[in-house]
Amino acid sequence: MAATKPNTARVVALRFEDGVLHAIDQTELPWNERELALRTADEVADAIIRLSIRGAPLIGVAAAYGVALELARDPSPESLERACHILRTARPTAVNLSAAVDRVRSAVLRGTAALNEARAIEAEEEAASAAIATHGADLLGKAGARRILTHCNTGALAAPGRGTALAVIAELADRGVLEMAIATESRPLLQGARLTVYELSRLGIPHELVVDSAAPGLIAAGAVDAVIVGCDRVAANGDVANKVGTYGLALAANAAGIPFVVAGPTSTIDPATASGADIVIEERDADEVRQAAGRVLTLQGTRTRNPAFDVTPAALVTALVTERGVTSTA
Amino acid sequence: MAATKPNTARVVALRFEDGVLHAIDQTELPWNERELALRTADEVADAIIRLSIRGAPLIGVAAAYGVALELARDPSPESLERACHILRTARPTAVNLSAAVDRVRSAVLRGTAALNEARAIEAEEEAASAAIATHGADLLGKAGARRILTHCNTGALAAPGRGTALAVIAELADRGVLEMAIATESRPLLQGARLTVYELSRLGIPHELVVDSAAPGLIAAGAVDAVIVGCDRVAANGDVANKVGTYGLALAANAAGIPFVVAGPTSTIDPATASGADIVIEERDADEVRQAAGRVLTLQGTRTRNPAFDVTPAALVTALVTERGVTSTA
Repeated sequence: MAATKPNTARVVALRFEDGVLHAIDQTELPWNERELALRTADEVADAIIRLSIRGAPLIGVAAAYGVALELARDPSPESLERACHILRTARPTAVNLSAAVDRVRSAVLRGTAALNEARAIEAEEEAASAAIATHGADLLGKAGARRILTHCNTGALAAPGRGTALAVIAELADRGVLEMAIATESRPLLQGARLTVYELSRLGIPHELVVDSAAPGLIAAGAVDAVIVGCDRVAANGDVANKVGTYGLALAANAAGIPFVVAGPTSTIDPATASGADIVIEERDADEVRQAAGRVLTLQGTRTRNPAFDVTPAALVTALVTERGVTSTA
Repeated sequence: MAATKPNTARVVALRFEDGVLHAIDQTELPWNERELALRTADEVADAIIRLSIRGAPLIGVAAAYGVALELARDPSPESLERACHILRTARPTAVNLSAAVDRVRSAVLRGTAALNEARAIEAEEEAASAAIATHGADLLGKAGARRILTHCNTGALAAPGRGTALAVIAELADRGVLEMAIATESRPLLQGARLTVYELSRLGIPHELVVDSAAPGLIAAGAVDAVIVGCDRVAANGDVANKVGTYGLALAANAAGIPFVVAGPTSTIDPATASGADIVIEERDADEVRQAAGRVLTLQGTRTRNPAFDVTPAALVTALVTERGVTSTA
């Protein structure tokens, strides 16, 4: 394939206009392209809890706007603290959420308008996405990776701008060196089947969908040149919390000797968390496992375990790509 | 828990009565307990292709009866060859299928009634199941494994009698030493969520359901004492083809230093296949990936890869349990 002009069919997951945060309801994709109009911190927190807004960088930005929305209604210190509390605790694992809320809170306490700080965070994340795409594509392009497997959704629906891991894949496609994006469906909530396929389809990037458990065998069989994923929290020692299933992909990539690359903005790195063992893993509702896209799959009342994330030890991560460049351990 | 009397709520997947092969339609479980009445080799082959009858030992037995059904209608040599051909080629990966068909064919050519040979195969598989349960439970009991993860379905719906890996779990429960069976859902066709949960529920064995990709993280987190799975073909060098996703579980068990045990009758061992690289991996229909229990999960027309099996290298298998005992490589 020859290099073509960058694709502009990118989805815009969040936009703040006229005092309202508009967010694509990601629970309804790919079937309905419906926007939510969020006007309060509670509405934003609820959208984050229900995963209408998801992706570590995106929930940070949404929460920042959530604080601004609440202060526009009631600028009191009590209102600030309340908004920060409900947004910070909406989900526990991605550090971006609490970091963005804390940053807006500090800015407000210093006299900066919350909305300005939220806009600054969004702009920084968008710039980070663009830089990650470049650095990651340089890395994987040099490695000659043409068939790239990714997990969950890490595109424009997960971060302002192009996204993280999926932005790298899109950049490789723009450069004309991508043969195939292989998307895992990412049970239980199917962010791969629903969201990544939707984005890749809009962008016109060749792709294949696989069930999560097929990925290790395909990697072992030589069908994949590299794995690239996003991250929800990177501990100080380099351990990575990301969508459940990531660890198994890292094991398989490692066993096959192909690159296992993690992409994310530095806002996802949490120096305050020493190692993966210290990361709180969110356990979500049993019905997510008992159902798929609303269809019941098993006997009623079946007990489940439903960790939303797992931890990949730093030793299995070939390279960490941030907006600052590549930290390689391989 | 004290040891209790063996549970008798076991499901009977196949029974041959009055010239008809009755088979529970496993595609409808756990919602409907409907029996198919199969009267021809074509009907049996079709039930195997559609996975109404599945599980390596069970499809071998069903195919054996399929030959007998056909010869009861037309005992000619042409009829024998035709029946053997359509049954042998119904699915490619499990060696039991072709082995059982070839065995009935040879018996018929020697002058033995096909039905007698089919009954003999069934009886042998049932006895093998019982012996596997004992040997496997001895092994895992000695290892002190109380929280045991299994993949796909390997119980009474997969083999005559109690099954293979799930029979080991049931035997540990009968002995009062099982704390928890952890069942992976086993996408795309959800044999874990639909069939294993159904069997465990009938047997009153405590169990939890997880999405496939959650298993490696739970194993790494110390939530699992051992993994036991069945097998569809064991190569001469000990490599194991089994339900897609098995390889990732083996990697995770290996990394965590817990036993990864494969259970199956010796009929699943194929000395004619040198290694895993020589095993034909069945690629199934894209709609299995695009849907779950009939619900569409992604954009229409999405390309998929849908290998039904993967290969686990012998080096990752702690022990192989057959009716003859335990072959341990650890």
